[in-house]
Amino acid sequence: MTRVEPRDPEFETRVRESFARQALMRTIGAELARVEPGRVEIALPYRPDLTQQHGYLHAGITSAIADSAGGYAGYSLFPAESSVLTVEFKINLLAPAAGERFVALGEVVKPGRTLTICRLEVSAIKGERRTLIALGQQTLICLEGQPDRPGAVLKRATQHRRSP
Amino acid sequence: MTRVEPRDPEFETRVRESFARQALMRTIGAELARVEPGRVEIALPYRPDLTQQHGYLHAGITSAIADSAGGYAGYSLFPAESSVLTVEFKINLLAPAAGERFVALGEVVKPGRTLTICRLEVSAIKGERRTLIALGQQTLICLEGQPDRPGAVLKRATQHRRSP
Amino acid sequence: MTRVEPRDPEFETRVRESFARQALMRTIGAELARVEPGRVEIALPYRPDLTQQHGYLHAGITSAIADSAGGYAGYSLFPAESSVLTVEFKINLLAPAAGERFVALGEVVKPGRTLTICRLEVSAIKGERRTLIALGQQTLICLEGQPDRPGAVLKRATQHRRSP
Amino acid sequence: MTRVEPRDPEFETRVRESFARQALMRTIGAELARVEPGRVEIALPYRPDLTQQHGYLHAGITSAIADSAGGYAGYSLFPAESSVLTVEFKINLLAPAAGERFVALGEVVKPGRTLTICRLEVSAIKGERRTLIALGQQTLICLEGQPDRPGAVLKRATQHRRSP
Repeated sequence: MTRVEPRDPEFETRVRESFARQALMRTIGAELARVEPGRVEIALPYRPDLTQQHGYLHAGITSAIADSAGGYAGYSLFPAESSVLTVEFKINLLAPAAGERFVALGEVVKPGRTLTICRLEVSAIKGERRTLIALGQQTLICLEGQPDRPGAVLKRATQHRRSP
Repeated sequence: MTRVEPRDPEFETRVRESFARQALMRTIGAELARVEPGRVEIALPYRPDLTQQHGYLHAGITSAIADSAGGYAGYSLFPAESSVLTVEFKINLLAPAAGERFVALGEVVKPGRTLTICRLEVSAIKGERRTLIALGQQTLICLEGQPDRPGAVLKRATQHRRSP
Repeated sequence: MTRVEPRDPEFETRVRESFARQALMRTIGAELARVEPGRVEIALPYRPDLTQQHGYLHAGITSAIADSAGGYAGYSLFPAESSVLTVEFKINLLAPAAGERFVALGEVVKPGRTLTICRLEVSAIKGERRTLIALGQQTLICLEGQPDRPGAVLKRATQHRRSP
Repeated sequence: MTRVEPRDPEFETRVRESFARQALMRTIGAELARVEPGRVEIALPYRPDLTQQHGYLHAGITSAIADSAGGYAGYSLFPAESSVLTVEFKINLLAPAAGERFVALGEVVKPGRTLTICRLEVSAIKGERRTLIALGQQTLICLEGQPDRPGAVLKRATQHRRSP
């Protein structure tokens, strides 16, 4: 994607503070490696307690870092007072998730006032070798005027999607 | 789906042993709640260390239990000496994942010798109330003759998908 | 899904008139077989000029009737003055699309003010036999206050998704 | 993707002959614009009889050219005696499909002996302006030893996915 101007000059602080509130990222040991407008990278060292039955990283964890990377790539372009929720994503697991560490990249392909579409990539790194292990596509929704804090969004986000 | 006859009469033991080898499921506190031919349920109590920035269950964890439920629903119909890998899945997050506990259901829609397609559902339970929070669709591949053990699949699974 | 009350009592007329404006449906010979609140069926007789290289119905045509069935299932629950656009869909092609005719079913799983999620199914019918050939999942967006007419939506729909 | 060596030196002829057997492509006026190893482009002029209710190209036709472009991108890397079937695809419709003509690009991201994963893109062209209108991801299956002819695949393809 061509470089996009963020609407909020404080986007990086906003993204880093929100990421710090994602308890799961701390639990699994993931870190925000890179924050640019419309492009975010998350790094995760391999840990045996995050694996599936063959000892590879579980697809749910591959998805977790991919989803957060895409979500924050979108959120970096959102206005200051807003929240991001994932509407849906699709992910192809291209190869067994074997490596010493993993890097998830989220990149905005199509920003929008309401919906934002991202491309997701996860690579496994072992020594000098980097292998693409997952490729995804994600749809995000921007909830304007809804602060990004625990509990704050529950009511309106539910309302947003309630039955007619 | 209409009830399917499993090829391996020991399917439940095989599924339970493989699930027990998924370190991630232990790490997050997930349990195998139900194992039937072509239909598996996984239960997960809410834990604040598995959340995203608003305090809801992280979409990656919702995906992890959905992916494992679908994977084992497929695996229950596979032959005795085989492994299962997820090719891809797509998931819609229908409502914020707020609840006391979560139940993921994986159900085989189309079994096949090589590929098996599953429907995925995740519900949040709060008191008497059960809310559908995620809906997905998953493609699995059966690796025949490949034991379901740590390390065992790496070589052949990679080979399976290598470049021409 | 449990039966939903449509907001617009004239939903069926509105759906049928919009379907009649979909020139593609006429071109391929598709018909609106059933219109209920949140549930629409489209029927398509087999035609050799709609096939892929093996003589089966092309996946794009399977997708076209599935997408329209889901779109109108959602649209049946939308308010009177509105338009529907597909945000995205995912479809698994479960079996070769061989049959005398095909029926696509779209069903709303989660209605919402802005976004609506549908389940898609396509079956092939040959004599007495009905085979499920495709299964999908779709996200729709409701454009309120935008009339469902040729040309009318272009400006605002584009604006809706413009860059920040 | 880095350039891939095709296994079959006659890949272009094989792709062009198979495309010529896709009756739907002829019906809608689509043409094979470019065939490279692992990369195929299909061009389609706008036609009012292929539209949805607002006069844009119907998402099913956008999907049809995207699916064929990806399918032939994969098929270009398959061995000489083989067939290609689409397992599944997911597509995001990024903007209304308004233009004088459309170009679908299919590109192999991960080739494999059994499964091949492609990236799909569709652009609308109006005068000098080119707009990305759809982005997708596709899983293909290679049926080795199965000739790419009408009727030929039916039996084995069905068998491939039959119940256990």
